[in-house]
Parts: sequence; C-alpha cells; structure tokens
Amino acid sequence: MSSDNRVNSALLESLTHRLQRYGMRSVLFQQNMAQKIGVSHTDLKSAEILNETGPITAGELSKITGLSTGSVTALINRLEKSGYVKRERDQLDGRKVMIMPIPERQEQIKSHYQSLSMATKELCSAYNEQELILINQFVEEITKIMDKENNKLMSERER
Amino acid sequence: MSSDNRVNSALLESLTHRLQRYGMRSVLFQQNMAQKIGVSHTDLKSAEILNETGPITAGELSKITGLSTGSVTALINRLEKSGYVKRERDQLDGRKVMIMPIPERQEQIKSHYQSLSMATKELCSAYNEQELILINQFVEEITKIMDKENNKLMSERER
Repeated sequence: MSSDNRVNSALLESLTHRLQRYGMRSVLFQQNMAQKIGVSHTDLKSAEILNETGPITAGELSKITGLSTGSVTALINRLEKSGYVKRERDQLDGRKVMIMPIPERQEQIKSHYQSLSMATKELCSAYNEQELILINQFVEEITKIMDKENNKLMSERER
Repeated sequence: MSSDNRVNSALLESLTHRLQRYGMRSVLFQQNMAQKIGVSHTDLKSAEILNETGPITAGELSKITGLSTGSVTALINRLEKSGYVKRERDQLDGRKVMIMPIPERQEQIKSHYQSLSMATKELCSAYNEQELILINQFVEEITKIMDKENNKLMSERER
C-alpha cells in the first residue's frame, strides 16, 4: 500500500464518520425545530417532504415516510387542521386526492430555518466557485446514496 | 453584481437546499434503521450519541438530546434492558453515575450501517486527496454550524 493510499484511507474513514455525525446533528436539529414550532417530529418531517415534492397522494407520502396508510391519514388530518396542507381532487384524474402544501404556511416553516440557512451561506461564501461546484456535486451524490439506502430499508420492510 | 457573483449566489442557494435535502434523508434513514433494528427512533439516536461521546451522565445525555430528566431515565432503563448500555459509578467521583455504552452491542448497530458506509466510501474514493481534504473540512464546518444552531434552539427552550 502506497503512502498515498494510506492517507486516503484515513481520509475516507474520517469523512464517513463525519457524515454520520452530521446526519445525527440533522436529526437532533429537526427534533429541536419541531419542538420550537410546536408540531411533532413526524409531522414536521412530512411537511418538509411535501414542501420538496409538491402535491402528492396519501399513498405516495406513505411510501416516502414509511408510515402505514392509517398513520398517514391521521397525519394529513393533523396537517390539514394546522393549516399546512389541504386535500384537493386531482384535476386530471378525479379519483385521485392530492395533498397540497399551503405555500404561506410552508414559508413560515422556512422562516424558522433562516438562521441555519444564513450560517450555511456564510460558510459557503468562503469557498470559490470551483470548490462550491465540487461540494455541491458531492452533496448531491451522497443524497442519492441515502435515497438508495432508504429505498432498500423500505423494500425490506415490505417483504 | 458581477456575473461571477451571480453564479456563486445560485451555487449557494443550490448547496443550502441540497444540504437540507440531505439532512431530511438522514432523518428518514435513522427512522428506517430504528424500525429495522426494532428500537424506537429516540432510543437509536441516543445509542448513537453515546457511541460518539463515550460514557456520560444522564444529565449530559438529557442536555444533548433535549429530553427531560424523567424521559432520559426511562430511556436509559430501556437501553440497559436491551443491552446497549450499563450504568456504572464513576471511579473518580463516586456520586456520579455514568452511562457506559456496551461495545459489542454498539458494534451490532454499526454493522447495520455497513451498507451505507461502503457506498459512502466508494463515492469518496472517486475523489483525489486534495478534494477529500476540502470536503472533509466542509463537513466538519457544517457540523459545527449545526451544533451551534442546536444549542441555540435548546437554550431558547430552557428560557
């Protein structure tokens, strides 16, 4: 093993470990945020998912969150009651009911993340364009890996 | 605004957004994993925290997780029962009771993360040393930001 490989192997270990630590911090952050906003952790996560996906069906939300159909129905009821979403019949397929995120309320959620967003942007502005492109691409790739691992875990559960 | 600034501003937006998406995937991943291992989300998170910190007191764990003292006591009872931790009197200060992670059981948890670790390492090995150092440093910095934001949210709660 060349000296370069040894260095890289230590770096890989370090990076894998750090990514795990960052992931854990994200979990803690979301729980802290849910407590601040006054919604449950699961409800906040679902509101965030809807914010990202746009209108989807209850079945699709159940698949992404891994919650049972019954739990998702109860969840949508809660989110509807607190004004984060509304149910609407799909204009193209009248049999489908879509869960529509309500933009104003979603903006309110986003505003709570402002402090984190600002700090993130400040950190990023210390990097040059080439570096930002590299990091951007890395985060995109690692997110794809997470998606794949999540899908694997969810399909194991379905079996 | 120069064209360079515009490019960077779009990159900053994109990166901030991608980091949030990655964070959400981490939350989903941990929930899926908890379900697979058969422990609650909170319990798995706490076991992971202990794995990272090493022996700490119930008070310290309560501070990191944001759980009440009562909840933490119940949590430690559960983790002790499932063999993830044991309580031990501190050798230096007999009044302190430390929660000790049990290495074998923690290794079992880690083994469940193997698939993710392998995929992460494979991704990282596509980068050269200089790039890995940059990404490593970025992840470290963004984790510090998360820590700061978490502390802020937790101290708001205490007030």
